[in-house]
Amino acid sequence: MQRYFINEPADQQEITLPKDVAHHLVTVLRAQVGSQVEVVLADHRVYLATVTATDPARVKIDRDLNRDSELPLHVTLLCGLPKTKEKPELIVQKATELGADRIVFFESARSISHWAQNKQAKKLARLQKIADGAAEQSHRNRQPQVAYYPNLATALAANPADQRVVAWEESAKQGETSALHQVLTKMTPGQSLLAVFGPEGGLTSQEVGQMQDGGVIPVGLGPRILRTETAPLYFLAAVSYASELAVTHR
Amino acid sequence: MQRYFINEPADQQEITLPKDVAHHLVTVLRAQVGSQVEVVLADHRVYLATVTATDPARVKIDRDLNRDSELPLHVTLLCGLPKTKEKPELIVQKATELGADRIVFFESARSISHWAQNKQAKKLARLQKIADGAAEQSHRNRQPQVAYYPNLATALAANPADQRVVAWEESAKQGETSALHQVLTKMTPGQSLLAVFGPEGGLTSQEVGQMQDGGVIPVGLGPRILRTETAPLYFLAAVSYASELAVTHR
Repeated sequence: MQRYFINEPADQQEITLPKDVAHHLVTVLRAQVGSQVEVVLADHRVYLATVTATDPARVKIDRDLNRDSELPLHVTLLCGLPKTKEKPELIVQKATELGADRIVFFESARSISHWAQNKQAKKLARLQKIADGAAEQSHRNRQPQVAYYPNLATALAANPADQRVVAWEESAKQGETSALHQVLTKMTPGQSLLAVFGPEGGLTSQEVGQMQDGGVIPVGLGPRILRTETAPLYFLAAVSYASELAVTHR
Repeated sequence: MQRYFINEPADQQEITLPKDVAHHLVTVLRAQVGSQVEVVLADHRVYLATVTATDPARVKIDRDLNRDSELPLHVTLLCGLPKTKEKPELIVQKATELGADRIVFFESARSISHWAQNKQAKKLARLQKIADGAAEQSHRNRQPQVAYYPNLATALAANPADQRVVAWEESAKQGETSALHQVLTKMTPGQSLLAVFGPEGGLTSQEVGQMQDGGVIPVGLGPRILRTETAPLYFLAAVSYASELAVTHR
């Protein structure tokens, strides 16, 4: 069923749909009075709703579907800005499907592209729109936030987290299992996890050293070399597997 | 370091490079006599080699680097043919980075696109080239094979495996952990695992029922709805995490 995010308080019985949602539902999908949709309200819960009018479009909230598709861990990705325009778009779309809470781009030492200050708002708005659409399509309860910082230090300072890791191919195996597995098995539902990824060419050892001094843990993502846009997707799938599929369900 | 796949027996001390490799190494990368490269020979082992001549380009094999970046499980993906030309390309590139052995497309009941018989060879050659390039870039020991079958039954018959699963969103949790986790923890290194993915719109319940009758196990990939090109990438990352990062290293 079609799902829409509507930033309205959940204590209303009937809601007038925002223009873009109304257009999609009534004009594109040809919904009629009596058609059903899923709406996610400001409380991040999913409700079943029935169309009661089409011009202007209104829906009546039927009931809380009690569905939660969010990752148990709140994951923030910090991605070194990639070279092309397509790669941030791919990262945002796929990371949204895979459950990220927050997707941050920063200019890393080896980043070749640069977001001029007067273009940042427009670029972010475009990426946020991709995240919002992907959140609807993948049936998320939350739309991830997309953000941008001019460098690693400000990106880290603005995004505190319970645990912080950096994807680093030179990360040696530590002990019996990998560093990533050790981090994930220590975390509990509701905690926040931040992960840093380099741009093409990788992070410099200076950047990694600076992070290690700040307590960020280097983790390997297996023996193959992953492209800058593939590493965050591997990471999110691993977090999902470890926290949603490989655990004893409560 | 640059890596090339060269389909030559490993018992030679010096090798004349194939034309495309020679062109890339000498003309694009401007290698000279004395430059070093990594070559993967027909035995799928990685050797350090030194350029001994540039016209025609020849290398001397220095030593076996004893590096293996292949997944412990041999994974075959069976993907319902997606709508656009770009999605198979994305799947092939990313699945190669993530360690797939074999990437098969088949026309599923809900596949909208169709590969005409007289175009199959050309389309496969293009995808195989993407796989070969991605295998070099991700430092694989093997180039995955790309294949095409007109339907699910022939694709399954042509690709036997020790374990077979199908990604199916309706897959209920079975017992204490997910079906995928249960399958992966039962498998041992060297075994083969086949996974089936639907096109846009998903597999039909008839297709899934037919597979279940044949012993293919339905597995869920977490609570979010993944696009047709995202599900195989999630799957491979989960296999890597379970078999390379979350296990006690020998």
